[in-house]
Amino acid sequence: MANITKKVSWSSRGDESGGGERTPLLNGSEEVRYTRQVGLLSGEGGMFHIGRLSTVDLEEDMTSDESSQGHHVSMSSIDGVKVCVCVFQSLDYDNSENQLFLEEERRMSFLGFKCLEISRWVICGLIGFLTGLIACCIDIAVENLAGVKYYVVKQNIEKFTEVGGLSISLILWAVLNSAFVMVGAVIVAFFEPGAAGSGIPQIKCYLNGVKIPRVVRLKTLVVKVCGVICSVAGGLAVGKEGPMIHSGAVVAAGVSQGRSTSLKKDFKIFEYFRRDTEKRDFVSAGAAAGVSAAFGAPVGGVLFSLEEGASFWNQMLTWRIFFASMISTFTLNFFLSIYNNKPGDLSSPGLINFGRFESDSVAYNLYEIPLFIVMGAAGGLLGALFNILNYWLTIFRIRYVHRPCLQVMEAMLVAAVTATVSFAMIYFSNDCQPLGPDQSEDYPLQLFCADGEYNSMATAFFNTPERSVRSLFHNPPGSYNPLTLSLFTLTYFFLACWTYGLTVSAGVFIPSLLIGAAWGRLFGILLAAITPNGSVWAVPGKYALMGAAAQLGGIVRMTLSLTVIMVEATGNVTYGLPIMLVLLTAKIVGDYFVEGLYDIHIKLQSVPFLHLEAPATSHWLTAREVMGAPVTCFNRIEKVGTIVDVLSNTSTNHNGFPVIVPVLGKICGLILRSQLIVLLKHKVFVELARSRLTQRKLQLKDFRDAYPRFPPIQSIHVSQDERECMMDLTEFMNPTPYTVPQETSLPRVFKLFRALGLRHLVVVDSENRVVGLVTRKDLARYHLGKHGLEEMQLAQT
Amino acid sequence: MANITKKVSWSSRGDESGGGERTPLLNGSEEVRYTRQVGLLSGEGGMFHIGRLSTVDLEEDMTSDESSQGHHVSMSSIDGVKVCVCVFQSLDYDNSENQLFLEEERRMSFLGFKCLEISRWVICGLIGFLTGLIACCIDIAVENLAGVKYYVVKQNIEKFTEVGGLSISLILWAVLNSAFVMVGAVIVAFFEPGAAGSGIPQIKCYLNGVKIPRVVRLKTLVVKVCGVICSVAGGLAVGKEGPMIHSGAVVAAGVSQGRSTSLKKDFKIFEYFRRDTEKRDFVSAGAAAGVSAAFGAPVGGVLFSLEEGASFWNQMLTWRIFFASMISTFTLNFFLSIYNNKPGDLSSPGLINFGRFESDSVAYNLYEIPLFIVMGAAGGLLGALFNILNYWLTIFRIRYVHRPCLQVMEAMLVAAVTATVSFAMIYFSNDCQPLGPDQSEDYPLQLFCADGEYNSMATAFFNTPERSVRSLFHNPPGSYNPLTLSLFTLTYFFLACWTYGLTVSAGVFIPSLLIGAAWGRLFGILLAAITPNGSVWAVPGKYALMGAAAQLGGIVRMTLSLTVIMVEATGNVTYGLPIMLVLLTAKIVGDYFVEGLYDIHIKLQSVPFLHLEAPATSHWLTAREVMGAPVTCFNRIEKVGTIVDVLSNTSTNHNGFPVIVPVLGKICGLILRSQLIVLLKHKVFVELARSRLTQRKLQLKDFRDAYPRFPPIQSIHVSQDERECMMDLTEFMNPTPYTVPQETSLPRVFKLFRALGLRHLVVVDSENRVVGLVTRKDLARYHLGKHGLEEMQLAQT
Repeated sequence: MANITKKVSWSSRGDESGGGERTPLLNGSEEVRYTRQVGLLSGEGGMFHIGRLSTVDLEEDMTSDESSQGHHVSMSSIDGVKVCVCVFQSLDYDNSENQLFLEEERRMSFLGFKCLEISRWVICGLIGFLTGLIACCIDIAVENLAGVKYYVVKQNIEKFTEVGGLSISLILWAVLNSAFVMVGAVIVAFFEPGAAGSGIPQIKCYLNGVKIPRVVRLKTLVVKVCGVICSVAGGLAVGKEGPMIHSGAVVAAGVSQGRSTSLKKDFKIFEYFRRDTEKRDFVSAGAAAGVSAAFGAPVGGVLFSLEEGASFWNQMLTWRIFFASMISTFTLNFFLSIYNNKPGDLSSPGLINFGRFESDSVAYNLYEIPLFIVMGAAGGLLGALFNILNYWLTIFRIRYVHRPCLQVMEAMLVAAVTATVSFAMIYFSNDCQPLGPDQSEDYPLQLFCADGEYNSMATAFFNTPERSVRSLFHNPPGSYNPLTLSLFTLTYFFLACWTYGLTVSAGVFIPSLLIGAAWGRLFGILLAAITPNGSVWAVPGKYALMGAAAQLGGIVRMTLSLTVIMVEATGNVTYGLPIMLVLLTAKIVGDYFVEGLYDIHIKLQSVPFLHLEAPATSHWLTAREVMGAPVTCFNRIEKVGTIVDVLSNTSTNHNGFPVIVPVLGKICGLILRSQLIVLLKHKVFVELARSRLTQRKLQLKDFRDAYPRFPPIQSIHVSQDERECMMDLTEFMNPTPYTVPQETSLPRVFKLFRALGLRHLVVVDSENRVVGLVTRKDLARYHLGKHGLEEMQLAQT
Repeated sequence: MANITKKVSWSSRGDESGGGERTPLLNGSEEVRYTRQVGLLSGEGGMFHIGRLSTVDLEEDMTSDESSQGHHVSMSSIDGVKVCVCVFQSLDYDNSENQLFLEEERRMSFLGFKCLEISRWVICGLIGFLTGLIACCIDIAVENLAGVKYYVVKQNIEKFTEVGGLSISLILWAVLNSAFVMVGAVIVAFFEPGAAGSGIPQIKCYLNGVKIPRVVRLKTLVVKVCGVICSVAGGLAVGKEGPMIHSGAVVAAGVSQGRSTSLKKDFKIFEYFRRDTEKRDFVSAGAAAGVSAAFGAPVGGVLFSLEEGASFWNQMLTWRIFFASMISTFTLNFFLSIYNNKPGDLSSPGLINFGRFESDSVAYNLYEIPLFIVMGAAGGLLGALFNILNYWLTIFRIRYVHRPCLQVMEAMLVAAVTATVSFAMIYFSNDCQPLGPDQSEDYPLQLFCADGEYNSMATAFFNTPERSVRSLFHNPPGSYNPLTLSLFTLTYFFLACWTYGLTVSAGVFIPSLLIGAAWGRLFGILLAAITPNGSVWAVPGKYALMGAAAQLGGIVRMTLSLTVIMVEATGNVTYGLPIMLVLLTAKIVGDYFVEGLYDIHIKLQSVPFLHLEAPATSHWLTAREVMGAPVTCFNRIEKVGTIVDVLSNTSTNHNGFPVIVPVLGKICGLILRSQLIVLLKHKVFVELARSRLTQRKLQLKDFRDAYPRFPPIQSIHVSQDERECMMDLTEFMNPTPYTVPQETSLPRVFKLFRALGLRHLVVVDSENRVVGLVTRKDLARYHLGKHGLEEMQLAQT
């Protein structure tokens, strides 16, 4: 105990800090750099006022190949009005195997482990069931609301077509749309900004190991569900599929913890699962269940979760994830079949269903494959264009549209413009098609067409996007003329681009598919027209499908999981290879210009996102260069005052502290901020333990009860007397943290992080003394640009 | 250099040794215990004479719950005639990041990495193409040979049906079968015993990280392909699907290395991939391509590889694996379509095709799910029975049928018996069915049926198993009477059980499906008979499918990948949930009795197979208990004589050696036997380097050229003078091996091994001194039995 001052030689350093000796500034403000535009993603505190970014820097960000040093300089100057100093914490996917934990595990019988395993299955079943139920509710609500809306507008249009005065119909339509969207935007903007967008970037980050504040709360779920119903019913160019992934994740996080902190209800079950490791496993199951419900693609869901949360692949977990996905799609299917008065007809497994491609028309020929690849390239180009436009738009929004009321007004404006554009397109279109007996249109608009005919443009615009996609895939050849399709593609492209990023809950999957299906079908029609034996090619639906895949792939750049999702949604394995080739081409072409849409948005939030592999050319970096040093360490028996001071130091805000043996400085453990806070709260001080012999021993339960919202250090009162007490960390620290020597190469460190889901990695010298600490943020700085390794130096304010 | 004697204090210890302080014996013979019945799996040296096992011990192995200590005592006494001292080596999935490697990586430009990445894609495409081509050859060869056989026999039967003397037909059939099987068995038994069986256990072991000798050689592939053609054409109760997985893996191992050591041809390409890490990646792609070609299930193939090789999930790799799978199924499909004179008709993607389940008949009802679960349980029971019988049979074979000529004779006997039994069943059957106009039978046997009718039993027996499965799935209700099905199930069950494990190349998938389809259809027919509204249930094909899934699941116990394979093979997503439930039930029920068939065979070979997770109740074990100690270490600059002596010590046969700093004993690296052998071969001695200044520096290429067949130490001549030289290991050792402290719990060590694919893990004390070494065999000893943790103590001879 005479050696507490030893600590002084290790100065302030922890999880959230930056670049060690390679970063020029290591002052108190380094955590700011990850926190500037938190608003879009996290919404801690309800809203954010993000400062203006200088345009020059933005352009450097887009065209980083021009920065001669190979350094990626992104948006470094902010004239911020208010900048929130809130950091993205990481998740502790590595169990802290301290004495308490090991004792509990050793006490547990074989039967106890079996019970735990069964609970996990039950939870996954519940997750799937609830996710399916939510999907079902959303679907029914959207169908009904949109049905009422289209019915009213159709009646109105029919009424005014004869007598003139269609402008009244237009206004009615626009007002209805804006009203729906207003409700959706208000609840998102004012109550839970975290529910905005599709939620897929947030879930990607969560599975990657970044704790996004408020992302898995009940309130977020409620706002998300209501918001998505409003925005889809409001006729925006959005889908309800993306948000299902987020919804599933929230359900999983809630169910697996056996309590709701929002509702202040603790069911006292599943207490074992109250830690990041277990929770993240369940969240991945929830995300998979969401994908599964959205697309009727249980395998696709599993692969989505695996692609995003690759570091914790494990056979039993995968099997449980698959179970959750299956239950989810089954539940949705079952309840929808009851709703549609066809109980037991389990043929519509997802929210979106591409319909059955008949086996006659599915066959493709070898010589069509180059055509598909061309379509993939086109999808990649258009996707890149979409992403670049949306990137500029997002920057604009970050700068100018940051007040909730402005956000709501923008959303309403988009809704009104969507209605107006749609109306104009329908009005000026003269593409009339005969109304067949097997007409699948729910709201065929006659408008100025002859009797027994309907307006073909209206099938695309005057409909929910899901139905439009299906029509494009399956309507017989000749249902659309090329002009209709080109106009539709053009307008919908810009509408969808404008819509993504609005403060409403909505996904980008369906609009992408719709755009792609439109130009794909157009491509098919043109192909049939220019080739001599046109009749052979006359299956435009096939090209619509490929176009949809290409466009979606070009925008989101998902690969394996998207292929499987598309295959499952079409219900036909034959198209597997062409879809894969299309997606691959779209990804390669798109990546040449700009990143995927989700990655752009993740990057704009400056989330320390860890990619799957270390950059290829990073072998020249070692742990010594990457790590932060010096490190704040604690002694095994540490003075309470020292601990409180370190934890209270807001300029560092460290999260992990190596524990060392006094004098020698050798590492003997690792302790987390959250653990120290619980210890301080329960006043587990050595002196107290001696005086009050009856004091109850701190148990793992105390840590679990505090999880996941550990109180801030400021809320814990420590008296002056107590500050002089000592705290024995032996029992609570992780006695076997992973360590590496300083010479370890970056790829090796990276592999360790990814494979084990680490948050901290202690770097030691040959004497086992702590010399540095690598955190996931230290690794996230390095990424591969067009010209090799680039090191991000975010925000030097 | 004065400190070389330091090493003496660390006595002999390395990769292949066993239990450290917990194992009572640590003498020179410990590696024997992993090597006793290598014969079945590996076939190093062509054949094995495994000794008799005492019956008492065998029964202990089957009923280990009776051993009071919870210790699994397996077959410990062997009165061996000849016991081969050959060990299963492990693969080095962890890159040895020594100076040479890092220098190469650092020299490589960004473009270089891109080229490597492209080569990987090209290789995967090639793997897929060649695997598909092989599948195509097998299919065409089997179709033609079996076609000729059935045609000849049919003609003969028809000839003799009228005039009497059908015994001549029987003899003809039996002789034809035996002849085919003899050829297949002779090439396997005499030329390449490693090609026996389905090869799936071997590939599972390979992907798990165990190097099975000769498993990925060209010769094995050739024998496998010819063998499987002969055994399927010979009418055995086998399938050609399982061997495709092995074939794909061999193709991958060959193509990715850019050379064939068997053909002594080096194309000087893909040299970068000549190490275990890369090779294993490609082998997993090959296995996936094999599954994909076999079942037309590219996603199932990817999941199969991932289930088995879970430790190296990585998005890019998965995507490449998927590419290989897609190409494989496409190639097969394309060439088959040309062969069938329907070029471009890509509707038969796999060797086995379950045919199209029409959407009308596919729907199932909620109340059918309990029935499916009952079928799953039945499949689990029957599967367990199959496995237990086959286990006994395998033990019998190990003891008595170990000579190649005996093995060939057994195979021929089985072939003859199969023909006889089939003939008897057909002969005594009086189940005649009308020969419809849309008859899909290729060889309808009229036999004693009226004109215009055919013998229904013959559709099951007088056909390749693939066609029989399809008939059971799709023939209209009433095609089979219940008696036919029960008799067929009964006989085929025992025939298949007897057949698996014969010295022929053959898979167990199709026979399992066939047995299951038969009793499943029977179940459906009975169900329709006892329920009042039988017509609703009258889709026996649905129950045949579920029965097939249940039986296969009960035998092989695969879960996620099998569900996806089944779904892809049926081409219908709707059955996903019931198939999953059936497989899950079958696994749970079956696991209660006995392990899966492949696991039984892996266990019988005593392969150190690492399961996916540490046993649940193993938290009380730490690295100290698990590790082997003391460890043979080398100094950084070591005397050549010492190295040669250690490597030559056949009683230890270590593979990994920690390198320590003299005097202090602190760890500074890890070097492998293979590296030392290359160093010795090139005589990289310090003295020589000084005298011959022009000597070329050893490069990574020298290591790659020697890979994978490093010469044994005995073949390297080191003169007495050279023995006195010194060797500097600094440049060649891995300077940053993973280390853990002694207190690390077993699950933590296990996680590290699985996640990083380790072979050796150095255990250090607080001073960073080497105190032990954990190898994968140390971990494989612990497994979870019925009553908690069990420690295997294999072979104490």
